[in-house]
Amino acid sequence: MSAVLQDLRIDGDRLAGRLAALAEIGPIDGGGSARLALTDADGEGRDLVVSWMEDLGLRIDIDGVGNVIGTWPADRFDPPVLTGSHIDTVATGGRFDGTLGVLAGIEVLTTVIEAGVELAHPLAVGFFTNEEGSRFAPDMLGSLVFAGGLPLEEALDIVAIDGAVLGDELARIGYVGGMPCPARPPRAFVELHIEQGPVLEREGVTIGAVTGVQGISWQELTITGQSNHAGTTPMGMRHDAGYVAAAVVVAVRQLTSEISGLVGTVGRMDLHPDLVNVVAAQARLTVDLRHTDEATLAAAEAQLARAVQQLTDAEGVAVTSRTLARFEPVAFDADVVDLVAEVAQRHGLVVRRLASGAGHDAQMLARVCPAGMVFVPSVDGISHNPAEYTAPADLAAGANVLLHVIISLADPPPTAPAGGDT
Amino acid sequence: MSAVLQDLRIDGDRLAGRLAALAEIGPIDGGGSARLALTDADGEGRDLVVSWMEDLGLRIDIDGVGNVIGTWPADRFDPPVLTGSHIDTVATGGRFDGTLGVLAGIEVLTTVIEAGVELAHPLAVGFFTNEEGSRFAPDMLGSLVFAGGLPLEEALDIVAIDGAVLGDELARIGYVGGMPCPARPPRAFVELHIEQGPVLEREGVTIGAVTGVQGISWQELTITGQSNHAGTTPMGMRHDAGYVAAAVVVAVRQLTSEISGLVGTVGRMDLHPDLVNVVAAQARLTVDLRHTDEATLAAAEAQLARAVQQLTDAEGVAVTSRTLARFEPVAFDADVVDLVAEVAQRHGLVVRRLASGAGHDAQMLARVCPAGMVFVPSVDGISHNPAEYTAPADLAAGANVLLHVIISLADPPPTAPAGGDT
Repeated sequence: MSAVLQDLRIDGDRLAGRLAALAEIGPIDGGGSARLALTDADGEGRDLVVSWMEDLGLRIDIDGVGNVIGTWPADRFDPPVLTGSHIDTVATGGRFDGTLGVLAGIEVLTTVIEAGVELAHPLAVGFFTNEEGSRFAPDMLGSLVFAGGLPLEEALDIVAIDGAVLGDELARIGYVGGMPCPARPPRAFVELHIEQGPVLEREGVTIGAVTGVQGISWQELTITGQSNHAGTTPMGMRHDAGYVAAAVVVAVRQLTSEISGLVGTVGRMDLHPDLVNVVAAQARLTVDLRHTDEATLAAAEAQLARAVQQLTDAEGVAVTSRTLARFEPVAFDADVVDLVAEVAQRHGLVVRRLASGAGHDAQMLARVCPAGMVFVPSVDGISHNPAEYTAPADLAAGANVLLHVIISLADPPPTAPAGGDT
Repeated sequence: MSAVLQDLRIDGDRLAGRLAALAEIGPIDGGGSARLALTDADGEGRDLVVSWMEDLGLRIDIDGVGNVIGTWPADRFDPPVLTGSHIDTVATGGRFDGTLGVLAGIEVLTTVIEAGVELAHPLAVGFFTNEEGSRFAPDMLGSLVFAGGLPLEEALDIVAIDGAVLGDELARIGYVGGMPCPARPPRAFVELHIEQGPVLEREGVTIGAVTGVQGISWQELTITGQSNHAGTTPMGMRHDAGYVAAAVVVAVRQLTSEISGLVGTVGRMDLHPDLVNVVAAQARLTVDLRHTDEATLAAAEAQLARAVQQLTDAEGVAVTSRTLARFEPVAFDADVVDLVAEVAQRHGLVVRRLASGAGHDAQMLARVCPAGMVFVPSVDGISHNPAEYTAPADLAAGANVLLHVIISLADPPPTAPAGGDT
C-alpha cells in the first residue's frame, strides 16, 4: 500500500453535515429523529441518501424488499466490498444509530473516489429495510431477506403495528426494486455503528473491534397463584404470584453473577389485580438473557428454568413460559475482526475487542460473506433516545478505520512489502 | 341466668331469609351484591333493613352521617348494648361481609323480644355508613364519625370516586338524621362478622374470639435508576430499578419469616418503560405490613427501611417513600373477648382467639366503649367476591354466640349462683 493511500482520511465535517441533514427528516424534540420503517419520513430520508449516492456517481440497485445498494465503479457487477447499515429509527430515535454506518459508508466511498484510488474490487454502500423492527417484526428484516433468511414473499405480507402491509408501504414510498433477492453475496461486509452501550466510553476506548453478536433468549413467564386478603391471610397459606415473580427477578440477577459474560434483564412485570391490599393472583414478567456462547446461553436458560420450578413449587403456584425470541450467537469473521483491530492500532487509536449486545444487520450478512463491525463510543451508553451522542472526533475516527478496513478488503496488499506495482 | 334464658336460640332460617332478601338488592352475577355507599342500591338496602327494625318496634335514630340505630325498648334512652356492622359493599361484594353483623343483630333482638326477656340495659342494633371505603375515603367512615374521630362537617364534604359529595348523596337517599354525632357512647359494642380469611376454616374452628385489629402500615416506594439497553449494558454498570423493586419484595417476605405474626404483601408493582429489552428506569411498588403489636410493627417498618437503603445503595438507585395509610393496632376489651370465648365454649363450639387482619367498625367503637367481635369461618378465606360463603350452621352458631354475649352484657348475671330474682 502506498504512503499516500495510508494517509487518506475522511472529511469529518462533511460526515457531520450529512448526519445533521438526515436528522432533520422526521425531527423530534431533543434533536433526535422518528423515521419508522417505510413511513413518509423514511421515504424522504431514503430519497436524500439516494441523492447523495447519485451525486457520487454510484449505480443504485434496489431489491424487492427495499434494500438500496450504491456501487462504485457503476459498471462493475462482480461482488463488491459492502458497507452500510440502516436509516430507519425507533419512534424516539437518536441521530447516529444506523445512519452513521450508512453515511460513513458514503463518506468512505466519497474519499476513495475523490482521491482517485483504484482498487481490485468494487465498493458498495447500502441501507437495509426495517432494521429496528419498531413498525414491522422481525427486526433486521431487510438484511435477513438480503441474506436469504426469509423469503421475499413472506416479508412483503408482514403487517405493521399500524395495520399497513409491508409490500404496500414499500410501493407507496417508491422503493420496490428489481435487484434479485436474496442478493448475490458481497465479497465482504463491514458495518460501522455506535456501541449503544457504555463499555467503550467508560474504558476510554475509541474503537471496538466487534467479535460477534450475543445470542438472545427472550421469554415471558406467567405465574398464577391465588388472590387473597393481605391482612387476613397468614403467610404460610399464601400462593403469591407477585412474590414468586420478584424472586425470579432476583434469581436472574444471581444467575448473571454465576455465569461469566451472561447479561440478564427483567424489563417488564405486571401484577393482577394490582391492589395494595390483595395478594397477587397473577404476575407476568419477561426475561432477557444474552451470551456470546450458545452452549452457555442454553445452560443459563436451563438453570433459570430449574430455579423457577423450585420457587413455584415452594409457593404452590403454577407457571407457564412462552418464547418471545431466540437467536443463537453470531461470530464475525476472524480475519475481519483482526483487520479492524490492526487498522485502529495503526491509526494510534485505543481499541478493544467486544461482542455486541444488540442485534445488527452485519449478523445477517455474516450468513453469506466474511463480515465484521466497527464500534465507536456512545456517551453514557444512551441510545434509542434523542440524547444519543458520539463525539465528532470519535465519529471521524470510526469512519477512518472503516475507510482503511474497506480499502484493505477491496485491494489486499501484497504479502511482501512493495511499491505501487507488483 | 335462668335455664330458659340459657336455652334461647336464634332462628337460623329467619336469619338466612333476611340475608337472601338483602342480597337481592344490587344483585350481581355469582350471587353477590353491589351496594356502594349512598348509591340508590344502598338506599334501597337501608329502607329494607329499617323496615325490619320498625316491624320489631325498635326506635329508629339516624345521625348526621347516616348511621342508623334501632333501640329496644323504644322508650329507653340510657346507653344500650349495641351490636351491628354495615350493609354497604364493595363493587364485587358477597352477601355476608357486614350484612351478617346487622341482620344477626336484628335476629338477636327479635329473639329476645319474642321470648319476652327483660334485661337491665336496653339493646340496640345499627349499621354504619361507608364501611368499605370503596366509594368514599376513608373506610369505616360512619363509625369513625360516630366515635368522634372525624368531625361531621368534614365527613359531609368528602367527594366520592364518582365526583358526588357525601352530604348530597346522604340527602338524596333520605338518610340525614338528627341524632347527635359523635354519639353518646353505648354501654358496649359487639360485632359479628365473617373472618374474611382462611384461618378458622383451615383449623376446624367455628368461632373466633377477636382479640383486636392488626395495625396497618401501607407505603409506596418509588425507585429511580437508569434506563439502559438490556443487551449492551454490562451487569456491573446497571442501575436497575426493577431489580431493586423485586429485591424489596423478597426482603418483605424475609421480614415476615423473621418477625413472628407479621404479615407483609406487595400487591402492586409497575416498571417503566416496561419493555422487554430495556433496564427499568423506574419501579413503583406498595408494601402492606400488619402486626397486632405497635412496637413490633414500627420495628418491622424500620428494618425494611434499612434493607431498602442497603439495596438501593448497592445498585446506585434512588428511592422515595410515601405513607399511604398507617393505623395503630386496636386491642378489644379483654372482658368482652373472654365473654365471647366463654359463651362459645358453653355452647360446645370450638373457639380460638385471633386478631383481625382487616379493619372493622368495632375498632372505631373501641375508642369509646368496651368493644369486641365474633368471627365465623369464611370458606377458603374468600371475601369481597360473590363466591364469599359461610355455611348456614356457622352463621347460626355465630348469631347464637352474639345473642348470649349481648344478653350477658345487657343483664350481667349476679356473681353468686341465683335463681330468677336476686
